[in-house]
Amino acid sequence: MTDKEFFKVTSLGTLLELIRTFPCVNDEVLPLDQCAGRILSRDIASRIDLPEFKRATMDGYAVQARSTFGASESMPALLTIVGAVEMGEVPMVSVKTGEAVRIATGGMLPDGADSVVMVEHAQALDEHTLEIFKSAAPLQHVIEIGDDFRRGEQILLKGSRIRPQEMGVLAALGETHVPVYRQPVVAIISSGDEIVPIEQTPGLSQLRDVNAHTLTGLIGLSGGVPLYLGIVRDNIDDLHSLCKNAVAQADMVLISGGSSVGSRDFTMDVIKVLPDAEILVHGVSISPGKPTILARSKQKGIWGLPGQVASAMVVFQVMVRPMLEAIGGLSEDHLGAAHEVSAVLSRNLASVQGREDYVRVKLVHRANQVCAEPILGKSGLIHTMVKADGLIRIDMNSEGLDKGTPVRVILF
Amino acid sequence: MTDKEFFKVTSLGTLLELIRTFPCVNDEVLPLDQCAGRILSRDIASRIDLPEFKRATMDGYAVQARSTFGASESMPALLTIVGAVEMGEVPMVSVKTGEAVRIATGGMLPDGADSVVMVEHAQALDEHTLEIFKSAAPLQHVIEIGDDFRRGEQILLKGSRIRPQEMGVLAALGETHVPVYRQPVVAIISSGDEIVPIEQTPGLSQLRDVNAHTLTGLIGLSGGVPLYLGIVRDNIDDLHSLCKNAVAQADMVLISGGSSVGSRDFTMDVIKVLPDAEILVHGVSISPGKPTILARSKQKGIWGLPGQVASAMVVFQVMVRPMLEAIGGLSEDHLGAAHEVSAVLSRNLASVQGREDYVRVKLVHRANQVCAEPILGKSGLIHTMVKADGLIRIDMNSEGLDKGTPVRVILF
Repeated sequence: MTDKEFFKVTSLGTLLELIRTFPCVNDEVLPLDQCAGRILSRDIASRIDLPEFKRATMDGYAVQARSTFGASESMPALLTIVGAVEMGEVPMVSVKTGEAVRIATGGMLPDGADSVVMVEHAQALDEHTLEIFKSAAPLQHVIEIGDDFRRGEQILLKGSRIRPQEMGVLAALGETHVPVYRQPVVAIISSGDEIVPIEQTPGLSQLRDVNAHTLTGLIGLSGGVPLYLGIVRDNIDDLHSLCKNAVAQADMVLISGGSSVGSRDFTMDVIKVLPDAEILVHGVSISPGKPTILARSKQKGIWGLPGQVASAMVVFQVMVRPMLEAIGGLSEDHLGAAHEVSAVLSRNLASVQGREDYVRVKLVHRANQVCAEPILGKSGLIHTMVKADGLIRIDMNSEGLDKGTPVRVILF
Repeated sequence: MTDKEFFKVTSLGTLLELIRTFPCVNDEVLPLDQCAGRILSRDIASRIDLPEFKRATMDGYAVQARSTFGASESMPALLTIVGAVEMGEVPMVSVKTGEAVRIATGGMLPDGADSVVMVEHAQALDEHTLEIFKSAAPLQHVIEIGDDFRRGEQILLKGSRIRPQEMGVLAALGETHVPVYRQPVVAIISSGDEIVPIEQTPGLSQLRDVNAHTLTGLIGLSGGVPLYLGIVRDNIDDLHSLCKNAVAQADMVLISGGSSVGSRDFTMDVIKVLPDAEILVHGVSISPGKPTILARSKQKGIWGLPGQVASAMVVFQVMVRPMLEAIGGLSEDHLGAAHEVSAVLSRNLASVQGREDYVRVKLVHRANQVCAEPILGKSGLIHTMVKADGLIRIDMNSEGLDKGTPVRVILF
């Protein structure tokens, strides 16, 4: 441990540029129903016209629109019912002027018909005779061939996330198997002489390994596969061999070190001697999270995270998640997108110029507004994490925010 | 098919009361790392004081605060360094007045020490002599026993969702295995003579089974386990036996019927004769989604969903999801909670009084505001689903919304 340490910090903006220099993982082809939340690795074009036939969008009667022109409640048009369309079958009948065919929503329009009259605007007088009370326009309640998608049309873009609605569209196109990026594997290494596994009762002066489990949850939510490699004592050979191992097995490595300057130096020493190692960032101008390290080994990202749990969460949210999404193939304009809500700050908050501050807040609904209430208290406490609903960001150039300021709360 | 059909519709509010009458699933105990996103089935109290020892929150020197009183840059206090605290070890030394012990963040305070002086406010003149430039207050940079959690304190509540931060807290408490509600199994049955499996090339007049796959995605995102039972033709015996089967295997059943009145009647006929069947709702005063059916069989919910894909999605979001969450054990105040953003309506929207309208919108960022742009077009089209970012709700008592009205967009 040195008494004083100075290191050149990197701005968050620069760091977010750096994370885009890492290559993304390769892809795989999965059955459609396993693709929820995954990232498309190819553009998807339609191989068909959809629908491939004219469909009714209402229950009623397929007609030629001209047979109904001028019809009204007082002067209904009189048509002859010449049959019915069975669902899922090609109609056996066709429709001439003055004729009508019963049809249900989704049914295929018979030849000759160009419009559908809703059941509410018609009345069958007997099996063959139909009164229509309203003039129908051509193509009314009809979906035409290719109205949804045209053959060859680009439907979904590479790099987009597959939501339930995209699953529906892929189903409609007959894409039973879908090309998606592999989920990046993220190794977690906990280091520190004071850290014990959670199943162990910590001795006095020891602590359970909280970060590994918070990170496991965060990695999963961000589309990665966590790979917990365990706890390593502050022994340079052990940490080095575990890190080499991690780089070989995983697409990204998180080293959750102790929070002391000593432990950070130690992590730096280990990273420096990894294969093809390059230290990219040693210190970021945000708070909490300043002691963050980002390095590259064999084209893979190695993070040294702060040991304090709340700091590690903020660093993950603001920096690690966008990189995990980027190497997972998500398109640039969606990286790090978070759900935010508007609120009003409940008290004055001081901040230091020259760094971005992230403050944990609780949302409190009062009268007509949502207040963001900063969660204060000693740093290093775990319980502040579960009391918080989200984070607010205070700009690098701000000296603080006044009570009543409108803020955006990044939910977590 | 009947020419006209009248049915008594239920308000959304009444339906949302009804869904709370279904029992929730039982629970299971899982390894902590498998609990992300799951719902706690028991309150969790702390079995320990956390921390169990006084910890430093900064790198520096453990001292008696009184040894530093009056210290300044020009008149530093002079202390004797009597040792160092090793991480993860109980200190071998104690601290008397005028003495200091090196300590790192997270280290255990030695006996006698009541304060930590940051490394930035001290300078070691030699191995044994320390200058301190700033007066330290008692308990400065110290976390005391139980500051985080006190033994016996309620920490997490039954019915709350386990986020990464809750995983961290559970780790800190040594909860290696966690009681959570089982994930409800939701059976999906597609019915309709026109529906074919997605791997099949539909004949003219047929359509691929889109809803089953949209619903699979939605169920997964809502904490359920989808169980796709396949497509059944409009044959009353087949649908009845598949439904009985579904009620036996699943915690909830979704029948994604055709959209025609005929297919709805058919679904009703089948549901009525299920064991202990009770029709609770037949028609809801929302649009789209009016033809929704909710019934109960053997204490389980059976839904008849509209066949149109966009309508089925809205019904799922607004009604099925809250029920799925409720039977999955989520506490009442979180049911159906959705991420929303504020926006301004880009054009006038008409609405019909007496029903709630849900309109699909796209978010467009313009100048200084986010606009919600309604996605219009023929009903029954699939592509409107993937173009939309969310839904806006138009109140039952409203005749519509004017361009420029501030709206809340429910993201999906």
